Amino acid sequence: MTPAIILVRPQLGENIGAAARAMANFGLSDLRLVAPRDGWPNPKAREMAAHATDIIDRAQVFASLAEAISDRQWLYATTARPRDMLKTVVTPREAAGQLRAHMADGLAAALLFGPERTGLTNDEIALCDTAIAIPTAPENTSLNVAQALVVVAYEWFVAEAEAPACAAPMDEPTASKEEILGFLDHLERALDAAHYFRTEEIRPVMWRNLQNMFTRARLTPQEVRTLRGVLRALGRMNA
Amino acid sequence: MTPAIILVRPQLGENIGAAARAMANFGLSDLRLVAPRDGWPNPKAREMAAHATDIIDRAQVFASLAEAISDRQWLYATTARPRDMLKTVVTPREAAGQLRAHMADGLAAALLFGPERTGLTNDEIALCDTAIAIPTAPENTSLNVAQALVVVAYEWFVAEAEAPACAAPMDEPTASKEEILGFLDHLERALDAAHYFRTEEIRPVMWRNLQNMFTRARLTPQEVRTLRGVLRALGRMNA
Repeated sequence: MTPAIILVRPQLGENIGAAARAMANFGLSDLRLVAPRDGWPNPKAREMAAHATDIIDRAQVFASLAEAISDRQWLYATTARPRDMLKTVVTPREAAGQLRAHMADGLAAALLFGPERTGLTNDEIALCDTAIAIPTAPENTSLNVAQALVVVAYEWFVAEAEAPACAAPMDEPTASKEEILGFLDHLERALDAAHYFRTEEIRPVMWRNLQNMFTRARLTPQEVRTLRGVLRALGRMNA
Repeated sequence: MTPAIILVRPQLGENIGAAARAMANFGLSDLRLVAPRDGWPNPKAREMAAHATDIIDRAQVFASLAEAISDRQWLYATTARPRDMLKTVVTPREAAGQLRAHMADGLAAALLFGPERTGLTNDEIALCDTAIAIPTAPENTSLNVAQALVVVAYEWFVAEAEAPACAAPMDEPTASKEEILGFLDHLERALDAAHYFRTEEIRPVMWRNLQNMFTRARLTPQEVRTLRGVLRALGRMNA
């Protein structure tokens, strides 16, 4: 199973089309769009896609990132900027080797690309297992979204499988993002009920740190169920 | 000295702008345009260039490829299609390592990209020392010119210098393309004078083979002068 390409809130149809074209060049086909600004279908995307109109025609559109990633088990955030966040950052080449290993292991992966001007939000990056930073000249770090995709897709195409950087044992199943998001939602409600976030100012950073921790752990489905059991038990204690 | 990027007969201003943008991301700045279809300057190119308008503003425009390459000593032709031609073909990664070695040796290099629909002609490829073939899915080999540039420029940026594949001793100077083209022009006139090409039908292939031979040899300036001396001597014999 090849990695899915998820364009989050893409703005220009031309960039969606250029992304599809590069996907076809480098053997990718599963295109997902989260809340495309100009709606869907988009004639400009189809025009720019050239020989890759089938990828455009089969693209799936989702209202939220959560829906787009629900069947995935491993997410890569493509981001030019290093952020103030505890997240494994790899080069496109390292990511490509890991993606090949994921494919060999039957792990469903996706590559996330943010909108043109702003890139992925910190919260979106926090949901990802790994960040990909494309090396650029320090004075010009901002890549066009379709050009960033060219680099990552090209590296994926030419890559040989390498051992993934994550430490989890490979013979254990990996939780789907639907399971992880379900747990995180459960956790947030539990924390709110317990008045864990003392002020609304500190909530975003603390919540992002928690998301990062549970994303980094590469939980198994059984572990997610265990954690939810913990939350239920603690909730009963507070009640 | 970083490699020059030469866009041969580019058609869409958007692609010229996207090329400039990728150049800026990957530390390249010397953009040359040969006979751009829609003239120059081109507002669409400038708009698409985003933060790279300085590269657009400093781009040099040439009427012919010969003028654009005259100060260069080593040319790479980017071409998706393998052609019926005796030419060293390398991957973008191999080319990147060679370009780093060229830079360390003070050899002035250029990367040629052809027009959108047709790519470089066989005659243009014949003038190049090395061809770069970007690996692609076999069912989708046609890359957008700006996307091809992204791959090659990215590889150049992340490359470490490696030994160039060419066999010429590195302590000998390499002839400039102006010297090579001057010799080739001299040779063609000499061959015409000698009625070497029996028919006009066989001329293109025979001439391309000759161009390829003399390009592959990595001649020194002294060797070019020697060859021109040979042509002059033979010309006097025929006269």
